[in-house]
Amino acid sequence: MFKTIEWRKNSVVMIDQRALPTEERYLTYKNYTGVAKAIRDMVVRGAPAIGVAAAMGIALGALKIREKDRRGFKSQFKKICKAMAETRPTAVNLFWAIEKMKKVLSNNPRLSVKELKERLVDEAVTIYSEDIDINVRMGRNGRRFIKNGTSVLTHCNAGALATAGYGTALGVIRAAIEEGKSVKVFVDETRPFLQGSRLTAWELKKDGIDTTLIADNMAGYMMKKGFINCIIVGADRIAANGDVANKIGTYSVAVLAKQHKIPFYVAAPTSTIDLNIKNGDQIPIEERNANEITHIKGIRIAPKNINVKNPAFDVTPNRLVAAIITENGVARGDYQKRLKKFVNGN
Amino acid sequence: MFKTIEWRKNSVVMIDQRALPTEERYLTYKNYTGVAKAIRDMVVRGAPAIGVAAAMGIALGALKIREKDRRGFKSQFKKICKAMAETRPTAVNLFWAIEKMKKVLSNNPRLSVKELKERLVDEAVTIYSEDIDINVRMGRNGRRFIKNGTSVLTHCNAGALATAGYGTALGVIRAAIEEGKSVKVFVDETRPFLQGSRLTAWELKKDGIDTTLIADNMAGYMMKKGFINCIIVGADRIAANGDVANKIGTYSVAVLAKQHKIPFYVAAPTSTIDLNIKNGDQIPIEERNANEITHIKGIRIAPKNINVKNPAFDVTPNRLVAAIITENGVARGDYQKRLKKFVNGN
Repeated sequence: MFKTIEWRKNSVVMIDQRALPTEERYLTYKNYTGVAKAIRDMVVRGAPAIGVAAAMGIALGALKIREKDRRGFKSQFKKICKAMAETRPTAVNLFWAIEKMKKVLSNNPRLSVKELKERLVDEAVTIYSEDIDINVRMGRNGRRFIKNGTSVLTHCNAGALATAGYGTALGVIRAAIEEGKSVKVFVDETRPFLQGSRLTAWELKKDGIDTTLIADNMAGYMMKKGFINCIIVGADRIAANGDVANKIGTYSVAVLAKQHKIPFYVAAPTSTIDLNIKNGDQIPIEERNANEITHIKGIRIAPKNINVKNPAFDVTPNRLVAAIITENGVARGDYQKRLKKFVNGN
Repeated sequence: MFKTIEWRKNSVVMIDQRALPTEERYLTYKNYTGVAKAIRDMVVRGAPAIGVAAAMGIALGALKIREKDRRGFKSQFKKICKAMAETRPTAVNLFWAIEKMKKVLSNNPRLSVKELKERLVDEAVTIYSEDIDINVRMGRNGRRFIKNGTSVLTHCNAGALATAGYGTALGVIRAAIEEGKSVKVFVDETRPFLQGSRLTAWELKKDGIDTTLIADNMAGYMMKKGFINCIIVGADRIAANGDVANKIGTYSVAVLAKQHKIPFYVAAPTSTIDLNIKNGDQIPIEERNANEITHIKGIRIAPKNINVKNPAFDVTPNRLVAAIITENGVARGDYQKRLKKFVNGN
């Protein structure tokens, strides 16, 4: 089995998600700037995986700080955290992970720089291993929504490749299959970055799961024809009211699902929930480079100098969401109250 | 200005729509089997253009028939029509054009084979030139729906490249602009064949029209954000009740439009209306090769041996259609009665 990301001997190893599915290539990073660039360039993507990568990147950066006194160390450390925070704006797990790393410093005012470095590495590795555990718990909480014989549609990649392992939305599907249920998965290819065709189709196929790939614009037709009974996706940020930012196209899928009376589920760790954001309108939406639309693998597919819009995410309002599945429980409506409870862990 | 298709000295010349937008290449066909293959392989596509190509292909084939007697000629002629009918199943203009060509024989029982050949060429060229005229009339009928300052979304290519010239949906937009209106066009890239990014963006840009390209899955987000005020598309077949078969993804756009209270218009010649088909459920939907989804320009973008669904069209129910614009008038509801009237030309 592949590993999405791994801490190995004071370096970070990632599978290069830009090269999949044709090439399974691993890249090794020895400094935090490399990791920041990897996040920005989408070598690694998926909200939980971005969080893990950011934490490991900060740990790498901390190890290389030469200052021996806490004050000097802290000033360098802040710079690293800032660089990491500027990589991508939408996935809140990034900021959550950075906060976790910062707390190692603020919670341990008496530790030496050497001890802090050890603790920071420990924290990054803990974030990594807890993420897998969280996904498994999410799977257990959500699997009841995937009935035996269901055909599930998913959008983008909310799988092992989007997390430390197992996956959020795909984790729920995996948990249902592990229970012995027969599940068929339809995968939106997810333009422009093709996370569906390149990543989701690849990892589901590797697991021997019955997978069928469609273009994004076919989802409505497939719903109308009765091919799809259930939709499950991940999330990049969930507002306090349950509005969900996720990969561009998710909103359209949710509207179509409502129209066809198909339940639309979101699976995400509580680290994706941002209680500081009241509703989806306040979630910053990243606009990415036009090249992602005009070229595929370096080949031009649109006229030169054409105007392009390339929002990377959209927001699905809570009224279109049948349930939000987290590691701490499932919210079905009453998101305001329930999500707060899940984040606070009670 | 480019020509989509042209009859030139007993041959048919087509712009190769597979090579656009990076290369403007013209292919010359001297026999009907070549034209049939060109239709199947989507060198030429778009319902009206397919009709023109089929008629010209049949004329080419007829010219090469060696039999001098009518009976022998007719038997060869039938074979040619049959081959042409088997190229693509959904666009009814193909069958409409074949019928037009067959009528040249049945309406002229006394003409010699030599005379029939001349008449068949005349008929094909007439279908071609009438198509441009029809589009201009459609534009005049439909331009009132495009208000000054409107942002229009279109899906696939219903432009000059889909017709003998000017276009159906894009013809309506052109007519509005020719009236002096300011119009901005958003173009869905239209996976898998990318008619939007490769063809529509190319021909609108050539005309200096303000054009912005988006991925198909961004349409819902753009509607929600208020970027789009109006939608106009073409059609491959319209049932007697006004259900519209068009490029895959059209149905999703129509559902999203309804949800956002944005009017959804269809522009198509009466040759696209099939009164023999009661409703959209009866329209045959072509399923195309998986390669169109798994590869772009020969480059693999999905895992090997992945299952794929690739329906080339979908059906938008009449209740989602604000108006159907034809060369003979505009139907807004009451499609059953109005479409019949338009087809019968009164």
